Amino acid sequence: MYPNDGFHELGRQECLRRLAKVPVGRIVYTRRALPAVLPVNFGVDGDGAVVLRTSAASELVRAIDGAVVAFEADDVDAVRHSGWSVVVTGRATVVTDPAEHERLARTVPVSWVPSPQEVFVRIKPELVTGRELVGGRTLYGVDLTA
Amino acid sequence: MYPNDGFHELGRQECLRRLAKVPVGRIVYTRRALPAVLPVNFGVDGDGAVVLRTSAASELVRAIDGAVVAFEADDVDAVRHSGWSVVVTGRATVVTDPAEHERLARTVPVSWVPSPQEVFVRIKPELVTGRELVGGRTLYGVDLTA
Repeated sequence: MYPNDGFHELGRQECLRRLAKVPVGRIVYTRRALPAVLPVNFGVDGDGAVVLRTSAASELVRAIDGAVVAFEADDVDAVRHSGWSVVVTGRATVVTDPAEHERLARTVPVSWVPSPQEVFVRIKPELVTGRELVGGRTLYGVDLTA
Repeated sequence: MYPNDGFHELGRQECLRRLAKVPVGRIVYTRRALPAVLPVNFGVDGDGAVVLRTSAASELVRAIDGAVVAFEADDVDAVRHSGWSVVVTGRATVVTDPAEHERLARTVPVSWVPSPQEVFVRIKPELVTGRELVGGRTLYGVDLTA
């Protein structure tokens, strides 16, 4: 958060509540030493962890397993210049425990592009931040949400 | 792109065309050695550069000036399991030339949260990639776009 920038900060529980309401977010990671970002669907586990379901053979899994990543979701109204954004930052790990895999298979939304061998990647919610802009203003000070 | 993953690749010109159609994207960068991501509105310059208008005093400007960043925009239909995503990767630099600043002030959309001292940040389109998923399928093979 930046002081006096027109946004207000969202608490951890509020962030997780909003995160659970949207179907798609973006995984932010490093690929070949460059910043990378990819939209994916996801689930939120009981402890606030973000869980992705993806192909075991994917480049994404190789890139993020064991790495600290960010996961972002937002809902923005471009007409009203308002919206919110939530970011979960933490270490990503492929789930290897069979019982845990089985449990997530029942609870995490199916992948939009299913693969024969799927894995779950859990992003530990070490840092959960969010901010909201309610009625941004134009350069001329007109409140578009009025 | 991953071979046979159900997505198809978009060419550079098609990426830039789609980018110009959406009001908000996400800047992906590194903040305090952690991956960071922030939704922002933006403009696309003639050469395909992404241009952000933001506060000269912002933490964002300090973090990205001179760094290689990614900028992502997408349009996703969660019901049809389809959509596209475009990523521009390249070095971000604050525009210091007064004539260039003046030109961008006329062409780049105003910030949703105007500040008294604005700067423009240009992201050089060194790498422009995009992919599209037209009608993802469920785990059971039902084409939701049929």
